[in-house]
Amino acid sequence: MHIDFWKMHGLGNDFIMLDDRDKTIAGHIDYSDLAVHLCHRRFGIGADGIILARHSDTHDIRFVIINSDGSQPEMCGNGMRCFAKYLYENNILVKDEIKVQTLAGTVVPRIEKKQDAQVVSVCVDMGVPRLIPEQIPFVYDGKMALGVPIETGQGTMSVSCVSMGNPHAVIFVNDLSLVDIEVVGPMVENHPRFPEKTNVEFIEVISDSQIKMRVWERGAGVTLACGTGACAAVTAAHLTGWVGRQVRVHLDGGDLDILWDESSGHIFKTGPAQTVFKGTVEI
Amino acid sequence: MHIDFWKMHGLGNDFIMLDDRDKTIAGHIDYSDLAVHLCHRRFGIGADGIILARHSDTHDIRFVIINSDGSQPEMCGNGMRCFAKYLYENNILVKDEIKVQTLAGTVVPRIEKKQDAQVVSVCVDMGVPRLIPEQIPFVYDGKMALGVPIETGQGTMSVSCVSMGNPHAVIFVNDLSLVDIEVVGPMVENHPRFPEKTNVEFIEVISDSQIKMRVWERGAGVTLACGTGACAAVTAAHLTGWVGRQVRVHLDGGDLDILWDESSGHIFKTGPAQTVFKGTVEI
Repeated sequence: MHIDFWKMHGLGNDFIMLDDRDKTIAGHIDYSDLAVHLCHRRFGIGADGIILARHSDTHDIRFVIINSDGSQPEMCGNGMRCFAKYLYENNILVKDEIKVQTLAGTVVPRIEKKQDAQVVSVCVDMGVPRLIPEQIPFVYDGKMALGVPIETGQGTMSVSCVSMGNPHAVIFVNDLSLVDIEVVGPMVENHPRFPEKTNVEFIEVISDSQIKMRVWERGAGVTLACGTGACAAVTAAHLTGWVGRQVRVHLDGGDLDILWDESSGHIFKTGPAQTVFKGTVEI
Repeated sequence: MHIDFWKMHGLGNDFIMLDDRDKTIAGHIDYSDLAVHLCHRRFGIGADGIILARHSDTHDIRFVIINSDGSQPEMCGNGMRCFAKYLYENNILVKDEIKVQTLAGTVVPRIEKKQDAQVVSVCVDMGVPRLIPEQIPFVYDGKMALGVPIETGQGTMSVSCVSMGNPHAVIFVNDLSLVDIEVVGPMVENHPRFPEKTNVEFIEVISDSQIKMRVWERGAGVTLACGTGACAAVTAAHLTGWVGRQVRVHLDGGDLDILWDESSGHIFKTGPAQTVFKGTVEI
């Protein structure tokens, strides 16, 4: 059978978008196999994952994401922004705010900016950052772990620890270009005080509303962007007095706008979603 | 502007095919920039190169290939097979044999096998293998360098040297799965007796009509397939009595059928070309 798809990316994290509301694909191929096949960068279309729009009984729509290795993550921020744009521009759901069913619960992406009837950026509520060390988890006696020295093979590092559902260690540096992330990143990731390991964010403060950041992702190494990492970085930078509550984070893959809302305590992350091309593939 | 493309591959070597006979793209973007942009595997379509069908005054058609880094190679065997299939199935040239103008001269791909009006495999004349050591170049006193011992950090290796326009060192092994190509490959590639370095083919003879082969490409490392390498391997294996003149070569990316024609001395290489998907991209 032929299926139509859109190829999209959010900050370089790329996806094959499929309309599977009527589950017509299901009779033809196992979905994990489909993802592995379509995501191969030479023999397939090439992507980090496939995202399926599915019918939901309780929400506007259901979001199903399957990684290039066939595994199924609960949620993905970059993918969710692409999903909202895909639904809107394909006239599947022409609303500025939609209720999406995911394995991580309800997510409500909101279209922030449109141009010529195309969606430019999407905002997603990322929830409340957690700071209690044992919830991160980070081995520490105090109430919050901000600027805590830890010993590594590269000397003493000062880490600020935040959980956005996953653990983050934020490290402030004077010059991001001088950091050897491939060396320092894994040392912090695997430090014994992070019993479940940690993502590591290196940030350089530009002003009270802008930071530059590079990421060492737990289990993945250097990546172009990490949404939860940007939220964690702004949390740590705000709590230590470096930035306000509305901050633009410059990542290797592009920019994210982070708002830490004072009244709700929730973090809202706004970022781009882009369509690269549209195609048809035989499966 | 919107342009239509086909994404194709030959043995995993993948290309974006564009019909540019009327040169409409030319007014919009520099072609090197276009290749770099379209070939990016996250922000673009993703490929090893773009291939353009262009008008020729002297031939049926002109073949232009631009690599993902913007450079322009003379020719590419895997790309030429895709090109013949693309032209045929798009009704641009519905002939079993076409005369193609390339920077390396005239190439005449011939459609070998069709199924349901689709091209399955294509044969390309690869010319005459050269064996004179100084033409390869390989530093050696004899007339042909077959089974010549050279010293490497991994001990003595026996190399058989063939030029297909580019240099090849063929090494016969008993069990291909035991060869550590990443270690041995660069040692042979950079051995001082190859003044222009060399491609390195490790081959395991299965029968007099079948060999298994893995390749260390000069400047590129381990690749899924190397067309000239397959020709060189069959030349060396035939001259040393291991195989006949018609040999199937099993590579990581798929199979190639090599015929060393007795009367002309030319080598004919037949291999697959596959369409992965069809799409439209905005440039």
